[in-house]
Amino acid sequence: MNRGILIVLSGFSGAGKGTLMKELMKTYDNYALSVSMTTRSPRQGEINGREYFFSTRETFEEKIAQNGLIEYAEYCGNYYGTPRDYVEEQLAKGKDVILEIEIQGMRKVKQMFPEVLALFVTPPSAAELERRLRGRGTETEDAIKKRLMRAAGEADGVEDYEYIIINDDLQACVAQIHGIVQAAKLSTMRNAAFIKNIRKEIGDLSKGE
Amino acid sequence: MNRGILIVLSGFSGAGKGTLMKELMKTYDNYALSVSMTTRSPRQGEINGREYFFSTRETFEEKIAQNGLIEYAEYCGNYYGTPRDYVEEQLAKGKDVILEIEIQGMRKVKQMFPEVLALFVTPPSAAELERRLRGRGTETEDAIKKRLMRAAGEADGVEDYEYIIINDDLQACVAQIHGIVQAAKLSTMRNAAFIKNIRKEIGDLSKGE
Repeated sequence: MNRGILIVLSGFSGAGKGTLMKELMKTYDNYALSVSMTTRSPRQGEINGREYFFSTRETFEEKIAQNGLIEYAEYCGNYYGTPRDYVEEQLAKGKDVILEIEIQGMRKVKQMFPEVLALFVTPPSAAELERRLRGRGTETEDAIKKRLMRAAGEADGVEDYEYIIINDDLQACVAQIHGIVQAAKLSTMRNAAFIKNIRKEIGDLSKGE
Repeated sequence: MNRGILIVLSGFSGAGKGTLMKELMKTYDNYALSVSMTTRSPRQGEINGREYFFSTRETFEEKIAQNGLIEYAEYCGNYYGTPRDYVEEQLAKGKDVILEIEIQGMRKVKQMFPEVLALFVTPPSAAELERRLRGRGTETEDAIKKRLMRAAGEADGVEDYEYIIINDDLQACVAQIHGIVQAAKLSTMRNAAFIKNIRKEIGDLSKGE
């Protein structure tokens, strides 16, 4: 059983990450979606352990102290983080684990897991991004402006990701993500043991007899 | 029309590169195989412009002087090189151009085309490599030993490649190579123009109105 790949999926809010992930999980069985831990209050319809593990600040800070999170950040006064146990467990089982986190989180994960596969999801254009933000119909003009400003900040970091997924067709994007993950499994970086072994074998053969 | 991707395919002799390339070209129409130029004499059955462009040392050295080769090397007293014109022409047409060259060539190409996609083909094991070398039935014991020693040298450089193709099933490998190339087209590095543009657009939107 090969160890799974750790994947970070980030993207502008309004890029359609949630729908993509749902479809990806439905289509293929090699993925596991990491559930983040947060101290923010559940929104309507959110279920503990599905959208997030909801926790108190105290519990969260204990988790930090125990090095039990592979990344965490404070955002708008609330903690968000990725519990380490679940991720390690799923990777060991051969699952490809997806973290849907922000760029700061991705950078922290990369320090601990340099082989992380980092994908960034974007709508096909800025106009489309704005359209999708407005289309939700749940946000004030001010909130939309804030999201756009945040997107502008996020856009600065896109080159830190290895791949960009331009989300204009759900099925095509799901296939693209899966293709990228399959290709990643063939990277020399992720096949160090095989390479080391065949190198030794060929060395022995070329010296031997 | 998007510019094609430049691909270097290297591998141990006996890894099955030739068969892989033939099958890849037969299966997909987005590839163009670069034909190298050499000063070595044609072997039986080799046709000028198909296996190689055969040239005199004088012509080859003129080509070098005109910067008309994207890489070249001298090996066993003969020059081998990749003419630039054909590669540029095919990339511009949107073709993904494959160079079947050695590691030294790959390193030179990478200096000029940092975005080159470098793949290394290997048999599943050293024993299988030896079996294939012997299986040709055309080589002396001494030649086989030399090839194994050369393979041992090549094995040292495998980590300079991004992907490793373990060739134990022709069709699976062809699909893997194609998948890697398709994924590469989604790399942030190869989508710099799109990223630059959407970054500017979002910046404008977030400031505007």
